[in-house]
Amino acid sequence: MKQKNNHRQKVKNNQKSRIQATLFGTHAVIEALSNPSRRINMLYATEQAMEQIAEKGIKSKIPTTIIDKRELDNALPSGTVHQGMALDCAPLDEVSVQDMIAATAHKDKAVLVMLDQVTDPHNVGAILRSACAFGADGMIMQKKHAPELTGTMAKIACGAAEHVPVAYETNLTRTLETLQDAGFFAIGLDERGEQAINEFKTPDKCVLVLGAEGPGLRRLVKEQCDNLVRLPMSGHMPSINVSNAAAIALYAVIHG
Amino acid sequence: MKQKNNHRQKVKNNQKSRIQATLFGTHAVIEALSNPSRRINMLYATEQAMEQIAEKGIKSKIPTTIIDKRELDNALPSGTVHQGMALDCAPLDEVSVQDMIAATAHKDKAVLVMLDQVTDPHNVGAILRSACAFGADGMIMQKKHAPELTGTMAKIACGAAEHVPVAYETNLTRTLETLQDAGFFAIGLDERGEQAINEFKTPDKCVLVLGAEGPGLRRLVKEQCDNLVRLPMSGHMPSINVSNAAAIALYAVIHG
Repeated sequence: MKQKNNHRQKVKNNQKSRIQATLFGTHAVIEALSNPSRRINMLYATEQAMEQIAEKGIKSKIPTTIIDKRELDNALPSGTVHQGMALDCAPLDEVSVQDMIAATAHKDKAVLVMLDQVTDPHNVGAILRSACAFGADGMIMQKKHAPELTGTMAKIACGAAEHVPVAYETNLTRTLETLQDAGFFAIGLDERGEQAINEFKTPDKCVLVLGAEGPGLRRLVKEQCDNLVRLPMSGHMPSINVSNAAAIALYAVIHG
Repeated sequence: MKQKNNHRQKVKNNQKSRIQATLFGTHAVIEALSNPSRRINMLYATEQAMEQIAEKGIKSKIPTTIIDKRELDNALPSGTVHQGMALDCAPLDEVSVQDMIAATAHKDKAVLVMLDQVTDPHNVGAILRSACAFGADGMIMQKKHAPELTGTMAKIACGAAEHVPVAYETNLTRTLETLQDAGFFAIGLDERGEQAINEFKTPDKCVLVLGAEGPGLRRLVKEQCDNLVRLPMSGHMPSINVSNAAAIALYAVIHG
Protein backbone atom coordinates (compact mmCIF):
# COMPACT_ATOMS: atom_id res chain seq x y z
CA MET A 1 0.00 0.00 0.00
CA LYS A 2 2.84 2.35 0.79
CA GLN A 3 4.29 1.94 -2.67
CA LYS A 4 0.94 2.69 -4.27
CA ASN A 5 0.51 5.87 -2.28
CA ASN A 6 4.01 7.04 -3.08
CA HIS A 7 3.39 6.70 -6.75
CA ARG A 8 0.07 8.40 -6.51
CA GLN A 9 1.71 11.31 -4.83
CA LYS A 10 4.39 11.54 -7.47
CA VAL A 11 1.90 11.74 -10.30
CA LYS A 12 -0.16 14.34 -8.48
CA ASN A 13 2.81 16.59 -7.76
CA ASN A 14 3.91 16.76 -11.32
CA GLN A 15 0.98 16.65 -13.68
CA LYS A 16 3.27 17.05 -16.66
CA SER A 17 5.24 13.90 -15.81
CA ARG A 18 4.73 11.31 -18.49
CA ILE A 19 4.11 7.66 -17.78
CA GLN A 20 6.24 5.29 -19.85
CA ALA A 21 3.26 3.20 -20.87
CA THR A 22 3.45 1.19 -24.07
CA LEU A 23 0.01 -0.39 -23.73
CA PHE A 24 -3.33 1.08 -22.75
CA GLY A 25 -7.01 0.20 -22.99
CA THR A 26 -8.96 -2.59 -21.25
CA HIS A 27 -8.40 -5.51 -23.61
CA ALA A 28 -4.80 -4.72 -24.54
CA VAL A 29 -3.77 -4.38 -20.89
CA ILE A 30 -5.74 -7.35 -19.53
CA GLU A 31 -4.46 -9.69 -22.24
CA ALA A 32 -0.89 -8.52 -21.58
CA LEU A 33 -1.33 -9.10 -17.83
CA SER A 34 -2.57 -12.62 -18.63
CA ASN A 35 0.44 -13.37 -20.81
CA PRO A 36 3.14 -15.12 -18.77
CA SER A 37 5.79 -14.05 -21.31
CA ARG A 38 5.22 -10.34 -20.65
CA ARG A 39 7.64 -8.64 -18.29
CA ILE A 40 5.59 -5.97 -16.51
CA ASN A 41 7.33 -2.93 -15.05
CA MET A 42 4.27 -1.08 -13.77
CA LEU A 43 0.51 -1.21 -14.12
CA TYR A 44 -1.25 2.15 -13.82
CA ALA A 45 -4.94 1.70 -13.16
CA THR A 46 -7.94 3.47 -11.70
CA GLU A 47 -9.82 1.83 -8.79
CA GLN A 48 -12.58 0.89 -11.21
CA ALA A 49 -10.12 -0.64 -13.67
CA MET A 50 -8.57 -2.63 -10.81
CA GLU A 51 -11.99 -4.22 -10.24
CA GLN A 52 -12.17 -5.25 -13.90
CA ILE A 53 -8.69 -6.75 -13.62
CA ALA A 54 -9.62 -8.62 -10.42
CA GLU A 55 -12.73 -10.00 -12.15
CA LYS A 56 -10.47 -11.58 -14.76
CA GLY A 57 -8.80 -13.58 -12.01
CA ILE A 58 -5.34 -12.13 -12.63
CA LYS A 59 -3.61 -13.00 -9.39
CA SER A 60 0.14 -12.86 -9.91
CA LYS A 61 1.96 -10.02 -8.19
CA ILE A 62 2.06 -7.04 -10.48
CA PRO A 63 3.74 -3.75 -9.54
CA THR A 64 0.78 -1.39 -9.48
CA THR A 65 0.14 2.32 -9.16
CA ILE A 66 -3.45 3.31 -8.44
CA ILE A 67 -4.18 6.54 -10.24
CA ASP A 68 -7.34 8.50 -10.91
CA LYS A 69 -8.71 9.07 -14.38
CA ARG A 70 -7.65 12.69 -14.66
CA GLU A 71 -4.11 11.95 -13.52
CA LEU A 72 -3.92 9.26 -16.18
CA ASP A 73 -5.28 11.67 -18.80
CA ASN A 74 -2.51 14.10 -17.90
CA ALA A 75 0.28 11.55 -17.72
CA LEU A 76 -0.43 10.03 -21.16
CA PRO A 77 -0.28 11.77 -24.53
CA SER A 78 -3.37 13.91 -25.15
CA GLY A 79 -6.34 12.00 -26.50
CA THR A 80 -5.13 8.54 -25.43
CA VAL A 81 -8.16 6.26 -25.00
CA HIS A 82 -6.83 4.46 -21.92
CA GLN A 83 -10.12 3.27 -20.36
CA GLY A 84 -8.47 3.59 -16.94
CA MET A 85 -5.50 1.27 -17.58
CA ALA A 86 -1.98 1.74 -18.87
CA LEU A 87 0.95 -0.64 -18.75
CA ASP A 88 4.68 -0.04 -18.70
CA CYS A 89 6.04 -3.36 -19.94
CA ALA A 90 8.91 -4.81 -21.96
CA PRO A 91 8.26 -5.68 -25.59
CA LEU A 92 7.60 -9.32 -26.41
CA ASP A 93 10.53 -11.38 -27.65
CA GLU A 94 11.29 -10.79 -31.32
CA VAL A 95 9.87 -13.35 -33.69
CA SER A 96 11.20 -14.18 -37.15
CA VAL A 97 9.62 -15.86 -40.13
CA GLN A 98 11.94 -18.81 -39.47
CA ASP A 99 10.26 -19.16 -36.07
CA MET A 100 6.85 -19.22 -37.78
CA ILE A 101 8.02 -21.88 -40.23
CA ALA A 102 9.33 -23.99 -37.33
CA ALA A 103 6.15 -23.49 -35.28
CA THR A 104 3.91 -24.63 -38.15
CA ALA A 105 6.15 -27.43 -39.46
CA HIS A 106 4.10 -30.17 -37.77
CA LYS A 107 0.74 -28.74 -38.82
CA ASP A 108 -1.29 -29.86 -41.83
CA LYS A 109 -2.66 -26.39 -42.39
CA ALA A 110 -1.27 -22.95 -41.66
CA VAL A 111 -2.19 -19.39 -42.60
CA LEU A 112 0.06 -16.36 -42.28
CA VAL A 113 -0.80 -12.75 -43.08
CA MET A 114 1.74 -10.40 -44.65
CA LEU A 115 1.17 -6.63 -44.81
CA ASP A 116 3.04 -4.69 -47.48
CA GLN A 117 3.20 -1.08 -46.27
CA VAL A 118 -0.10 -1.01 -44.47
CA THR A 119 0.80 1.60 -41.90
CA ASP A 120 -2.37 2.95 -40.26
CA PRO A 121 -2.39 1.59 -36.69
CA HIS A 122 -6.19 1.29 -36.68
CA ASN A 123 -6.15 -0.92 -39.75
CA VAL A 124 -3.14 -2.97 -38.64
CA GLY A 125 -4.68 -3.43 -35.18
CA ALA A 126 -8.00 -4.60 -36.62
CA ILE A 127 -6.20 -7.02 -38.97
CA LEU A 128 -4.18 -8.49 -36.09
CA ARG A 129 -7.42 -8.94 -34.14
CA SER A 130 -9.05 -10.76 -37.07
CA ALA A 131 -5.93 -12.89 -37.55
CA CYS A 132 -6.22 -13.92 -33.90
CA ALA A 133 -9.96 -14.60 -34.13
CA PHE A 134 -9.50 -16.89 -37.14
CA GLY A 135 -6.52 -18.68 -35.60
CA ALA A 136 -3.90 -17.44 -38.07
CA ASP A 137 -0.36 -18.58 -37.29
CA GLY A 138 1.39 -15.24 -37.58
CA MET A 139 1.56 -11.82 -39.14
CA ILE A 140 4.52 -10.35 -41.02
CA MET A 141 5.21 -6.66 -41.65
CA GLN A 142 8.03 -4.66 -43.17
CA LYS A 143 10.44 -3.35 -40.56
CA LYS A 144 10.52 0.22 -41.82
CA HIS A 145 6.88 0.66 -42.77
CA ALA A 146 4.78 -0.74 -39.97
CA PRO A 147 3.50 0.40 -36.61
CA GLU A 148 5.00 -1.12 -33.47
CA LEU A 149 2.99 -3.51 -31.32
CA THR A 150 2.14 -0.77 -28.86
CA GLY A 151 -0.24 2.12 -28.23
CA THR A 152 -3.21 2.58 -30.54
CA MET A 153 -2.30 -0.40 -32.69
CA ALA A 154 -2.26 -2.71 -29.67
CA LYS A 155 -5.45 -1.17 -28.28
CA ILE A 156 -7.35 -1.73 -31.52
CA ALA A 157 -5.95 -5.28 -31.66
CA CYS A 158 -7.66 -5.86 -28.28
CA GLY A 159 -4.81 -7.96 -26.95
CA ALA A 160 -4.29 -10.07 -30.09
CA ALA A 161 -0.58 -9.16 -29.96
CA GLU A 162 -0.29 -11.50 -26.97
CA HIS A 163 -1.47 -14.46 -29.03
CA VAL A 164 -0.41 -13.98 -32.65
CA PRO A 165 3.34 -13.95 -33.40
CA VAL A 166 4.32 -10.82 -35.34
CA ALA A 167 7.55 -10.69 -37.35
CA TYR A 168 9.11 -7.51 -38.73
CA GLU A 169 11.22 -8.35 -41.78
CA THR A 170 13.48 -6.12 -43.88
CA ASN A 171 12.76 -7.48 -47.34
CA LEU A 172 9.29 -8.86 -47.92
CA THR A 173 10.07 -10.32 -51.35
CA ARG A 174 12.89 -12.35 -49.88
CA THR A 175 10.67 -13.34 -46.96
CA LEU A 176 8.08 -14.67 -49.40
CA GLU A 177 10.82 -16.72 -51.09
CA THR A 178 11.81 -18.20 -47.74
CA LEU A 179 8.19 -19.09 -47.01
CA GLN A 180 7.71 -20.60 -50.46
CA ASP A 181 10.81 -22.76 -49.96
CA ALA A 182 9.19 -23.99 -46.76
CA GLY A 183 6.01 -25.02 -48.61
CA PHE A 184 3.87 -21.91 -48.22
CA PHE A 185 1.81 -20.73 -51.16
CA ALA A 186 1.79 -16.93 -51.52
CA ILE A 187 -1.67 -15.47 -52.29
CA GLY A 188 -1.61 -11.80 -53.17
CA LEU A 189 -4.83 -9.85 -52.80
CA ASP A 190 -5.15 -7.63 -55.86
CA GLU A 191 -8.22 -6.01 -57.38
CA ARG A 192 -6.99 -7.04 -60.82
CA GLY A 193 -6.37 -10.65 -59.74
CA GLU A 194 -7.52 -13.20 -62.33
CA GLN A 195 -9.30 -15.41 -59.89
CA ALA A 196 -12.00 -14.43 -57.39
CA ILE A 197 -11.13 -15.62 -53.88
CA ASN A 198 -14.39 -17.60 -53.63
CA GLU A 199 -13.40 -19.65 -56.70
CA PHE A 200 -9.94 -20.32 -55.38
CA LYS A 201 -9.05 -23.59 -53.68
CA THR A 202 -6.79 -22.68 -50.79
CA PRO A 203 -3.56 -24.64 -50.44
CA ASP A 204 -2.87 -26.19 -47.03
CA LYS A 205 -0.17 -23.72 -46.14
CA CYS A 206 -0.46 -20.19 -47.37
CA VAL A 207 0.52 -16.62 -46.75
CA LEU A 208 -2.06 -13.94 -47.56
CA VAL A 209 -0.34 -10.82 -48.85
CA LEU A 210 -2.14 -7.46 -48.58
CA GLY A 211 -1.05 -4.02 -49.73
CA ALA A 212 -2.17 -0.56 -48.70
CA GLU A 213 -5.44 0.93 -49.96
CA GLY A 214 -4.80 2.82 -53.16
CA PRO A 215 -1.27 1.76 -54.14
CA GLY A 216 -1.90 -1.93 -53.42
CA LEU A 217 0.98 -4.43 -53.49
CA ARG A 218 4.36 -3.16 -54.63
CA ARG A 219 5.54 -4.62 -57.94
CA LEU A 220 8.25 -6.94 -56.66
CA VAL A 221 6.08 -8.30 -53.87
CA LYS A 222 3.24 -8.86 -56.33
CA GLU A 223 5.52 -10.67 -58.79
CA GLN A 224 6.74 -12.95 -56.03
CA CYS A 225 3.20 -14.16 -55.23
CA ASP A 226 2.16 -17.56 -56.60
CA ASN A 227 -1.30 -16.31 -57.37
CA LEU A 228 -3.23 -13.04 -57.35
CA VAL A 229 -6.83 -13.21 -56.23
CA ARG A 230 -9.49 -10.54 -55.96
CA LEU A 231 -12.51 -10.08 -53.74
CA PRO A 232 -15.66 -10.54 -55.80
CA MET A 233 -17.14 -7.04 -55.54
CA SER A 234 -19.75 -5.65 -57.85
CA GLY A 235 -21.21 -2.43 -56.46
CA HIS A 236 -20.87 1.18 -57.59
CA MET A 237 -17.56 1.61 -55.77
CA PRO A 238 -15.84 -1.77 -55.62
CA SER A 239 -13.30 -0.91 -52.96
CA ILE A 240 -13.36 -1.57 -49.24
CA ASN A 241 -11.27 -0.74 -46.20
CA VAL A 242 -8.07 -2.83 -46.00
CA SER A 243 -8.93 -4.35 -42.62
CA ASN A 244 -12.31 -5.38 -43.99
CA ALA A 245 -10.58 -6.91 -47.03
CA ALA A 246 -8.19 -8.78 -44.74
CA ALA A 247 -11.07 -10.12 -42.64
CA ILE A 248 -12.87 -11.44 -45.72
CA ALA A 249 -9.68 -12.96 -47.13
CA LEU A 250 -8.92 -14.72 -43.83
CA TYR A 251 -12.46 -16.05 -43.65
CA ALA A 252 -12.36 -17.16 -47.29
CA VAL A 253 -9.04 -19.02 -47.15
CA ILE A 254 -9.88 -20.70 -43.83
CA HIS A 255 -13.59 -21.44 -44.30
CA GLY A 256 -14.51 -20.54 -47.88
CA MET B 1 -14.05 34.90 -59.99
CA LYS B 2 -15.34 37.82 -58.01
CA GLN B 3 -17.54 35.56 -55.95
CA LYS B 4 -14.62 33.29 -55.18
CA ASN B 5 -12.47 36.18 -54.02
CA ASN B 6 -15.21 37.59 -51.87
CA HIS B 7 -15.59 34.34 -50.05
CA ARG B 8 -11.88 33.97 -49.64
CA GLN B 9 -11.73 37.37 -48.06
CA LYS B 10 -14.53 36.59 -45.69
CA VAL B 11 -12.84 33.47 -44.42
CA LYS B 12 -9.54 35.28 -43.99
CA ASN B 13 -11.00 38.16 -42.04
CA ASN B 14 -12.66 35.97 -39.51
CA GLN B 15 -10.64 32.86 -38.88
CA LYS B 16 -13.13 31.70 -36.26
CA SER B 17 -16.02 31.69 -38.73
CA ARG B 18 -17.28 28.20 -39.25
CA ILE B 19 -18.12 26.72 -42.61
CA GLN B 20 -21.47 24.91 -42.68
CA ALA B 21 -19.95 21.85 -44.32
CA THR B 22 -21.68 18.52 -43.85
CA LEU B 23 -19.26 16.53 -46.01
CA PHE B 24 -15.49 16.57 -46.22
CA GLY B 25 -12.68 14.39 -47.56
CA THR B 26 -11.78 13.53 -51.16
CA HIS B 27 -14.02 10.54 -51.80
CA ALA B 28 -17.05 11.76 -49.86
CA VAL B 29 -17.01 15.14 -51.61
CA ILE B 30 -16.25 13.89 -55.12
CA GLU B 31 -18.97 11.23 -55.00
CA ALA B 32 -21.46 13.83 -53.73
CA LEU B 33 -20.49 16.22 -56.56
CA SER B 34 -21.06 13.36 -59.01
CA ASN B 35 -24.51 12.61 -57.61
CA PRO B 36 -27.18 14.47 -59.59
CA SER B 37 -29.60 14.18 -56.65
CA ARG B 38 -27.40 16.26 -54.34
CA ARG B 39 -28.27 19.91 -53.94
CA ILE B 40 -24.95 21.70 -53.46
CA ASN B 41 -24.86 25.04 -51.64
CA MET B 42 -21.11 25.62 -51.68
CA LEU B 43 -17.94 23.69 -52.38
CA TYR B 44 -14.90 24.80 -50.38
CA ALA B 45 -11.70 23.49 -51.93
CA THR B 46 -7.99 24.20 -52.14
CA GLU B 47 -6.39 24.81 -55.55
CA GLN B 48 -4.90 21.32 -55.41
CA ALA B 49 -8.25 19.76 -54.54
CA MET B 50 -9.82 21.64 -57.47
CA GLU B 51 -7.37 19.84 -59.75
CA GLN B 52 -8.45 16.47 -58.36
CA ILE B 53 -12.09 17.44 -58.92
CA ALA B 54 -11.35 18.57 -62.48
CA GLU B 55 -9.60 15.25 -63.17
CA LYS B 56 -12.82 13.46 -62.30
CA GLY B 57 -14.55 15.30 -65.13
CA ILE B 58 -17.10 17.02 -62.89
CA LYS B 59 -18.27 19.80 -65.16
CA SER B 60 -21.62 21.06 -63.94
CA LYS B 61 -21.64 24.54 -62.42
CA ILE B 62 -20.96 24.28 -58.72
CA PRO B 63 -20.85 27.32 -56.41
CA THR B 64 -17.24 27.25 -55.29
CA THR B 65 -15.03 29.01 -52.79
CA ILE B 66 -11.31 28.53 -53.25
CA ILE B 67 -9.69 28.39 -49.86
CA ASP B 68 -6.22 27.50 -48.65
CA LYS B 69 -5.53 24.54 -46.40
CA ARG B 70 -4.99 26.55 -43.24
CA GLU B 71 -8.14 28.56 -43.71
CA LEU B 72 -10.05 25.31 -44.11
CA ASP B 73 -8.40 23.91 -40.96
CA ASN B 74 -9.60 26.95 -39.07
CA ALA B 75 -13.08 27.03 -40.51
CA LEU B 76 -13.87 23.38 -39.74
CA PRO B 77 -13.99 21.72 -36.32
CA SER B 78 -10.52 20.96 -34.99
CA GLY B 79 -9.01 17.72 -36.27
CA THR B 80 -11.31 17.39 -39.29
CA VAL B 81 -9.54 15.32 -41.96
CA HIS B 82 -10.79 17.36 -44.90
CA GLN B 83 -8.08 16.58 -47.48
CA GLY B 84 -8.63 20.03 -48.97
CA MET B 85 -12.35 19.69 -49.69
CA ALA B 86 -15.53 20.43 -47.79
CA LEU B 87 -19.10 20.61 -49.03
CA ASP B 88 -22.10 22.53 -47.80
CA CYS B 89 -24.99 20.55 -49.27
CA ALA B 90 -28.56 19.52 -48.51
CA PRO B 91 -29.17 16.05 -47.11
CA LEU B 92 -30.30 13.36 -49.53
CA ASP B 93 -34.03 12.65 -49.70
CA GLU B 94 -35.24 10.46 -46.88
CA VAL B 95 -35.59 6.78 -47.69
CA SER B 96 -37.89 4.33 -45.92
CA VAL B 97 -37.86 0.55 -45.72
CA GLN B 98 -41.00 0.60 -47.88
CA ASP B 99 -38.94 2.32 -50.59
CA MET B 100 -36.33 -0.46 -50.33
CA ILE B 101 -39.03 -3.12 -50.62
CA ALA B 102 -40.43 -1.40 -53.70
CA ALA B 103 -36.99 -0.94 -55.27
CA THR B 104 -36.12 -4.63 -54.88
CA ALA B 105 -39.57 -6.04 -55.74
CA HIS B 106 -38.57 -6.94 -59.29
CA LYS B 107 -35.22 -8.47 -58.29
CA ASP B 108 -34.58 -12.18 -57.77
CA LYS B 109 -32.03 -11.49 -55.08
CA ALA B 110 -31.60 -8.68 -52.59
CA VAL B 111 -29.51 -8.06 -49.50
CA LEU B 112 -30.13 -5.38 -46.89
CA VAL B 113 -28.01 -4.59 -43.84
CA MET B 114 -29.58 -3.58 -40.53
CA LEU B 115 -27.52 -2.10 -37.69
CA ASP B 116 -28.94 -2.39 -34.18
CA GLN B 117 -27.29 0.35 -32.12
CA VAL B 118 -23.94 0.35 -33.87
CA THR B 119 -23.08 3.97 -33.26
CA ASP B 120 -19.35 4.53 -33.93
CA PRO B 121 -19.14 6.59 -37.13
CA HIS B 122 -15.92 4.83 -38.20
CA ASN B 123 -17.58 1.43 -38.00
CA VAL B 124 -20.85 2.56 -39.58
CA GLY B 125 -18.94 4.32 -42.37
CA ALA B 126 -16.83 1.23 -43.12
CA ILE B 127 -19.94 -0.98 -43.14
CA LEU B 128 -21.72 1.37 -45.57
CA ARG B 129 -18.64 1.26 -47.80
CA SER B 130 -18.61 -2.56 -47.77
CA ALA B 131 -22.36 -2.63 -48.42
CA CYS B 132 -21.75 -0.46 -51.48
CA ALA B 133 -18.81 -2.57 -52.69
CA PHE B 134 -20.82 -5.77 -52.49
CA GLY B 135 -23.86 -4.21 -54.16
CA ALA B 136 -26.18 -4.39 -51.14
CA ASP B 137 -29.61 -2.84 -51.71
CA GLY B 138 -29.79 -0.69 -48.60
CA MET B 139 -28.84 -0.14 -45.00
CA ILE B 140 -31.23 0.39 -42.09
CA MET B 141 -30.40 2.01 -38.76
CA GLN B 142 -32.38 3.01 -35.70
CA LYS B 143 -33.37 6.67 -35.75
CA LYS B 144 -32.18 7.48 -32.25
CA HIS B 145 -29.01 5.43 -32.13
CA ALA B 146 -27.15 6.00 -35.36
CA PRO B 147 -24.79 8.58 -36.81
CA GLU B 148 -26.07 10.86 -39.55
CA LEU B 149 -24.85 10.49 -43.12
CA THR B 150 -22.40 13.34 -42.71
CA GLY B 151 -18.94 14.21 -41.41
CA THR B 152 -16.65 11.42 -40.28
CA MET B 153 -19.17 8.71 -41.06
CA ALA B 154 -19.53 9.91 -44.65
CA LYS B 155 -15.79 10.36 -45.01
CA ILE B 156 -15.05 6.80 -43.88
CA ALA B 157 -17.82 5.55 -46.19
CA CYS B 158 -15.83 7.12 -49.08
CA GLY B 159 -18.94 8.34 -50.86
CA ALA B 160 -20.97 5.14 -50.45
CA ALA B 161 -23.82 7.25 -49.03
CA GLU B 162 -24.42 8.53 -52.58
CA HIS B 163 -25.09 5.00 -53.83
CA VAL B 164 -26.60 2.93 -51.02
CA PRO B 165 -30.05 3.97 -49.75
CA VAL B 166 -30.01 4.42 -45.97
CA ALA B 167 -33.23 4.33 -43.92
CA TYR B 168 -33.56 5.48 -40.33
CA GLU B 169 -36.43 3.64 -38.65
CA THR B 170 -37.93 4.08 -35.19
CA ASN B 171 -38.63 0.48 -34.27
CA LEU B 172 -36.29 -2.12 -35.74
CA THR B 173 -38.34 -5.11 -34.59
CA ARG B 174 -41.37 -3.79 -36.42
CA THR B 175 -39.19 -2.97 -39.44
CA LEU B 176 -38.02 -6.59 -39.52
CA GLU B 177 -41.66 -7.73 -39.46
CA THR B 178 -42.44 -5.45 -42.42
CA LEU B 179 -39.48 -6.87 -44.32
CA GLN B 180 -40.45 -10.44 -43.47
CA ASP B 181 -43.98 -9.80 -44.74
CA ALA B 182 -42.38 -8.65 -47.99
CA GLY B 183 -40.42 -11.90 -48.33
CA PHE B 184 -37.13 -10.99 -46.68
CA PHE B 185 -35.45 -13.55 -44.45
CA ALA B 186 -33.89 -11.97 -41.33
CA ILE B 187 -30.42 -13.32 -40.50
CA GLY B 188 -29.09 -12.16 -37.13
CA LEU B 189 -25.34 -12.32 -36.57
CA ASP B 190 -24.79 -13.71 -33.09
CA GLU B 191 -21.75 -15.37 -31.61
CA ARG B 192 -24.00 -17.99 -30.03
CA GLY B 193 -25.84 -18.65 -33.31
CA GLU B 194 -26.47 -22.36 -33.91
CA GLN B 195 -25.31 -22.35 -37.49
CA ALA B 196 -22.00 -21.09 -38.85
CA ILE B 197 -22.50 -18.63 -41.69
CA ASN B 198 -20.42 -20.78 -44.06
CA GLU B 199 -22.82 -23.70 -43.55
CA PHE B 200 -25.86 -21.56 -44.12
CA LYS B 201 -27.68 -21.49 -47.45
CA THR B 202 -28.63 -17.89 -48.03
CA PRO B 203 -32.24 -17.18 -49.03
CA ASP B 204 -32.76 -15.04 -52.14
CA LYS B 205 -33.88 -11.99 -50.21
CA CYS B 206 -32.42 -11.35 -46.82
CA VAL B 207 -31.62 -8.72 -44.26
CA LEU B 208 -28.38 -9.13 -42.29
CA VAL B 209 -28.85 -7.85 -38.74
CA LEU B 210 -25.78 -6.79 -36.74
CA GLY B 211 -25.52 -5.52 -33.17
CA ALA B 212 -22.86 -3.52 -31.41
CA GLU B 213 -19.64 -5.15 -30.21
CA GLY B 214 -20.11 -6.38 -26.69
CA PRO B 215 -23.86 -6.16 -26.12
CA GLY B 216 -24.72 -7.67 -29.53
CA LEU B 217 -28.32 -7.72 -30.75
CA ARG B 218 -31.02 -6.56 -28.37
CA ARG B 219 -33.38 -9.29 -27.21
CA LEU B 220 -36.49 -8.29 -29.18
CA VAL B 221 -34.52 -7.73 -32.37
CA LYS B 222 -32.82 -11.10 -31.92
CA GLU B 223 -36.11 -12.88 -31.33
CA GLN B 224 -37.56 -11.37 -34.48
CA CYS B 225 -34.78 -12.86 -36.64
CA ASP B 226 -35.61 -15.99 -38.63
CA ASN B 227 -32.19 -17.45 -37.97
CA LEU B 228 -29.11 -16.66 -35.90
CA VAL B 229 -25.77 -17.42 -37.50
CA ARG B 230 -22.23 -17.04 -36.20
CA LEU B 231 -18.90 -16.39 -37.85
CA PRO B 232 -16.76 -19.54 -37.63
CA MET B 233 -13.93 -18.25 -35.46
CA SER B 234 -11.54 -20.43 -33.55
CA GLY B 235 -8.60 -18.42 -32.25
CA HIS B 236 -7.63 -17.38 -28.74
CA MET B 237 -9.93 -14.38 -28.80
CA PRO B 238 -12.85 -15.20 -31.10
CA SER B 239 -14.14 -11.66 -31.51
CA ILE B 240 -13.57 -9.16 -34.29
CA ASN B 241 -14.39 -5.57 -35.04
CA VAL B 242 -18.05 -5.07 -36.07
CA SER B 243 -17.20 -3.59 -39.47
CA ASN B 244 -14.97 -6.60 -40.17
CA ALA B 245 -17.80 -8.92 -39.10
CA ALA B 246 -20.20 -7.07 -41.39
CA ALA B 247 -17.78 -7.33 -44.32
CA ILE B 248 -17.43 -11.09 -43.85
CA ALA B 249 -21.18 -11.56 -43.46
CA LEU B 250 -21.87 -9.58 -46.64
CA TYR B 251 -19.29 -11.61 -48.55
CA ALA B 252 -20.64 -14.87 -47.14
CA VAL B 253 -24.31 -14.26 -47.94
CA ILE B 254 -23.57 -12.89 -51.41
CA HIS B 255 -20.73 -15.18 -52.50
CA GLY B 256 -20.31 -17.87 -49.83
